[in-house]
Amino acid sequence: MMSRTFRFLPLRLNVSAIFKSNANKVTSSARKLSHYHWSAKDYAEKMSMQPTHQYLFVNLQRPFSIRTHVPDAAHVSGSDDGTAAFMALFPDIVRELTEEIKSLKADEAATWNEKALEYNGLGGKKNRAFLAISAYKNLVKPEELTPEKLLLIQYLAWYIEMLQCFFLIIDDIMDDSVTRRGQLCWHKMDNVGTVAINDALMIENGIYALLRKHFRHLDCYVDLLELFHQINFITTSGQSMDNIYSKKQVNEFNMNKYNVITATKTGYYSFYFPVAAALHLAGVKDKAVFEKSKAILLEMSQLYQVQDDFIDCFGDSDISGKIGTDIQDNKSSWLAVMCVEKCSLEQRAIMEECYGQKDPEKVARVKQLYKELDLINCYHVYEETKYNDIKLQIQQVSNDVPKDAFLTLLNKFYKRQA
Amino acid sequence: MMSRTFRFLPLRLNVSAIFKSNANKVTSSARKLSHYHWSAKDYAEKMSMQPTHQYLFVNLQRPFSIRTHVPDAAHVSGSDDGTAAFMALFPDIVRELTEEIKSLKADEAATWNEKALEYNGLGGKKNRAFLAISAYKNLVKPEELTPEKLLLIQYLAWYIEMLQCFFLIIDDIMDDSVTRRGQLCWHKMDNVGTVAINDALMIENGIYALLRKHFRHLDCYVDLLELFHQINFITTSGQSMDNIYSKKQVNEFNMNKYNVITATKTGYYSFYFPVAAALHLAGVKDKAVFEKSKAILLEMSQLYQVQDDFIDCFGDSDISGKIGTDIQDNKSSWLAVMCVEKCSLEQRAIMEECYGQKDPEKVARVKQLYKELDLINCYHVYEETKYNDIKLQIQQVSNDVPKDAFLTLLNKFYKRQA
Repeated sequence: MMSRTFRFLPLRLNVSAIFKSNANKVTSSARKLSHYHWSAKDYAEKMSMQPTHQYLFVNLQRPFSIRTHVPDAAHVSGSDDGTAAFMALFPDIVRELTEEIKSLKADEAATWNEKALEYNGLGGKKNRAFLAISAYKNLVKPEELTPEKLLLIQYLAWYIEMLQCFFLIIDDIMDDSVTRRGQLCWHKMDNVGTVAINDALMIENGIYALLRKHFRHLDCYVDLLELFHQINFITTSGQSMDNIYSKKQVNEFNMNKYNVITATKTGYYSFYFPVAAALHLAGVKDKAVFEKSKAILLEMSQLYQVQDDFIDCFGDSDISGKIGTDIQDNKSSWLAVMCVEKCSLEQRAIMEECYGQKDPEKVARVKQLYKELDLINCYHVYEETKYNDIKLQIQQVSNDVPKDAFLTLLNKFYKRQA
Repeated sequence: MMSRTFRFLPLRLNVSAIFKSNANKVTSSARKLSHYHWSAKDYAEKMSMQPTHQYLFVNLQRPFSIRTHVPDAAHVSGSDDGTAAFMALFPDIVRELTEEIKSLKADEAATWNEKALEYNGLGGKKNRAFLAISAYKNLVKPEELTPEKLLLIQYLAWYIEMLQCFFLIIDDIMDDSVTRRGQLCWHKMDNVGTVAINDALMIENGIYALLRKHFRHLDCYVDLLELFHQINFITTSGQSMDNIYSKKQVNEFNMNKYNVITATKTGYYSFYFPVAAALHLAGVKDKAVFEKSKAILLEMSQLYQVQDDFIDCFGDSDISGKIGTDIQDNKSSWLAVMCVEKCSLEQRAIMEECYGQKDPEKVARVKQLYKELDLINCYHVYEETKYNDIKLQIQQVSNDVPKDAFLTLLNKFYKRQA
């Protein structure tokens, strides 16, 4: 479950360059990392002390910006910086959590938590974090984007990544996965095992400890707490649905359920959550803005996940770097659902016989059936139609919604192959 | 970890009598259960509609009250009722969560969550819930205890039990336990397995969904959210400490760490948490009241856990119903810590050789060593001294603290043998 990585091809965050080491193998302490950088507090202080040099300083601090090689990149204000400053905040996050745990005199647990955070928190592309940051920059006028506000959205973006990190550790345990982000899964490490569940919970709980520390004085505090709770509730419900459907017969799959599963399991926490967090921090109170954003973002999420399902089956493994197993795993994928909805009685019998089986001949038979039903062409038509439809929706929505950030996001994954 | 049940011998909650079935085997739906009872809302409505018959109605609704066969029972106001009304709220809790999940169109997940809640939520003695309720009744004047207030503390008590339920499911998975509360552990059930982790998370998240529904309008809402977060953070830190120490050499054990582990792993969530929740709901804002309560409750927790450790080794298994394995499991138990702190170099060598081993002869040698060091007598002196000390502390503390509830609690487990 949740085993597919949320990837945008054009967005490459070069963590290893930033930290001068392979991010997937970082084992040094967070304190060591901070030697390479200003700590976030130094950074905020410096920026507020030297207002005239602010933009020069930002450029110096952000040598490795998020690349936006996409058609609509020009729409986005300020999305081409922030990566280094965001990553430089990580050592502070680790240190603050260590202090919290040490205040309980649980020093050994604090050290262990550092290890778990560094092992699990640094990898990945941080797409959700950058979506939150870019949406926020889209919502706040550049002249009002103070160092303090920037720091707050970066903290918040880290908490979003911490929730993702928590989900991934748990997910890997439930799926008994072996690798994640190019390294052994945390629960597969020596001396870890199922204790990883508790480590994931500590990372999740760290979110609330830090939210309390940095956001308690703000109007949006309760809204943020409730957002994290709500997203957690929805995502676990989606996980449950996904698990239940992976055990059902293929002829029980249908498009309504497919949409519910993709939205609850991934759409809310990967697409809506970062934007809703940015809206709260930007002080947006109008519920309609949240609802309009949610509607568009869940559509985008659906497109993204249909792509994922297509790539799993018909993608080029040289580009995607992985060989899909949706058919073998009895996944309620878009292709399986489309197939079941379009097929004849004879074809349904083939699906019933071959779907969810490890036998390579049966897997090939299912793929052949997809081709017979013209699902490859269906997919391309779907992608094109959906893209245009979502683009139109974004263009037509009011300016209260961070539409430039939405357009960039949409263009980042349109026509992706991995 | 956390495998010891939090038991008070004199407090027997006859759930099976209430539900006219064995609580440990309840598999019928919550809706069925609610046929036996007024729903909580009917109950509150009825009480507010018929104020003159209020006490008669309470008696009719509470046939199976909490027994308080303890010396100081007379001190406690109103602790001898509430069991049936509290238990009757469970079907409402299940139904409300089902509605929440169904609002996401995740119907199958809603049904699955019902099963998980009913299987895991009904067993156990609900000591934490009753501590919250009795502390609350101790804080609020009887004439101010409206049906609405009673219902709120009962809801809150259920959320406390839901957190406990979440911890236990997770704990059983981490320990790979087979049984809990006289039935198979949830993760050992057919079709469950490691998905139980997600089920536990759904139960935990349900707390926040229900807190939002029933407590959002109250002043104490944010305090309650933060309390749940803080307790979760502390308990996972304690779990981590416990895990780390169970892998350490016995000569690294010491009393300071023992106290940290017992407080963080169990003391906060089992003793302080229910009382702090009651204080918040009662509108107490004075931090000193929380601090004084915490100090006393963590002392009680320590006494409770020293008893647990003693019973594990020297208890009568006919009374306690279980055979202890602390020595085999390399647990940092009170006896092991005392032994390491009192022993000679020769005796330390025996501990190093024999502790944490399955070999029955080695286990017997450790027990023998405990006897040679007079730890049985030490324990009895400790229990007596600690009991008197805590009793004095409670008597001397101000009346802002729910001291009668504390005294009852203390007397409930003093001299316990299981």
